[in-house]
Amino acid sequence: MLKLDLLYMSEALKQAKIAFEKDEVPVGAVIVHNGKIIARAHNQIKLLKDPTAHAEMIAITQAASYLGNERLLNATMYATIEPCPMCTGALVLARIKRLCIGASDPKTGACGSVFNIADNKRLNHRLQVKKGVLEEECASLLKEFFSRLRSDIGKAAGSRRQSVSEAQAGKKKR
Amino acid sequence: MLKLDLLYMSEALKQAKIAFEKDEVPVGAVIVHNGKIIARAHNQIKLLKDPTAHAEMIAITQAASYLGNERLLNATMYATIEPCPMCTGALVLARIKRLCIGASDPKTGACGSVFNIADNKRLNHRLQVKKGVLEEECASLLKEFFSRLRSDIGKAAGSRRQSVSEAQAGKKKR
Repeated sequence: MLKLDLLYMSEALKQAKIAFEKDEVPVGAVIVHNGKIIARAHNQIKLLKDPTAHAEMIAITQAASYLGNERLLNATMYATIEPCPMCTGALVLARIKRLCIGASDPKTGACGSVFNIADNKRLNHRLQVKKGVLEEECASLLKEFFSRLRSDIGKAAGSRRQSVSEAQAGKKKR
Repeated sequence: MLKLDLLYMSEALKQAKIAFEKDEVPVGAVIVHNGKIIARAHNQIKLLKDPTAHAEMIAITQAASYLGNERLLNATMYATIEPCPMCTGALVLARIKRLCIGASDPKTGACGSVFNIADNKRLNHRLQVKKGVLEEECASLLKEFFSRLRSDIGKAAGSRRQSVSEAQAGKKKR
C-alpha cells in the first residue's frame, strides 16, 4: 500500500467524520492534483436538502473550480466508500485519472459492486481503481452511523408506543 | 402519446435550444410536480467549467430546493436526451417517479442503452421510463450542433494549415 494513498485517504476519512458529526451519512472525499489536495468534501444531503450533494460530487465541482477546467486530467480522488452510479458517472465525465476507494458498497457501488461504470469499454474514459485503502476504518465509521441511527429510530418508536399507552390509559380513566 | 408529455417535452426542448445558442451541447430538462413545472434547466458545462453541470442535475437541484426536500416523490422529469449514468443515478437518488426521454443516447445512455440504472432490481428505487417523446426534434438539434462543431473544427484546421503554408512560403522567401 502506497504511503501517500494512506495519507490522502486519512484526509478523506476526516471529512467523513465531519459528516458523521453533522448526522449526514459519513462519506468523505478529497482530490489530489500534482501532489496537492485541491478539494475536500463530505456529504451534505440533509443540510442542503439536495440528493446530488454527495461528497464526491461536491469535491469534483470544487476541483474543477480550482483548476478552471471541467476536466480533472491527472487528478486522483480518494473516496471513503465506493462511489454510487451518479458519482462514478461524474468521475468519468471529469476524466479523473485514478480513484482510491476505502470500503466497497455492495448495495449501490458502481466501481464493480453493482455496476462497473469506472472501467467500462463502452465509455470513452476509464479510471484506474484501487480498492481497500483504510478499508476497516472507512467501513466501521459507516457501521457505527447506521447502528446509531437504528438505535435512535428504536428509541423514538418506543417513546411513541409509550405515549400511545399513556393516552389509552388516560382515555380509560376518563 | 399523452398531450401533456408533448407539452412538457417542448418546454425541455426550449431549454435545449438555449444551450445550443450558448455553444453548449443542446440538452434540456424540466421537472413537473402536481401539474406545475418546478425546474427548467439546460447544460452549463462550458459556462460553469463544471463536468457535473448537466441539464438534468441542475434541474434536480432546483426542484429539491423548490420542494425543500431531497426526495422528489411523484415528480416527472422530461429530458431531451437519454440521461447518462451520473444523471440517471441522481434521478434514482431523488426518487423521481417518472422519466420521459426525447432521443436515446447509444453512447452513454443509462436508461437501457449502455446501462440500465433507471430500472434495476438491485437498486432501491425504479423509475417509470417513457422513450421517444418528440424524439426527432430532440435528436435533430443534437445532430445540427455536432455537425456545426465538426465544420468549425474543419475550418479552424484549414486556417491553421493555410497559416503554416504561408509561414513556410515566407521562410522560403527569406
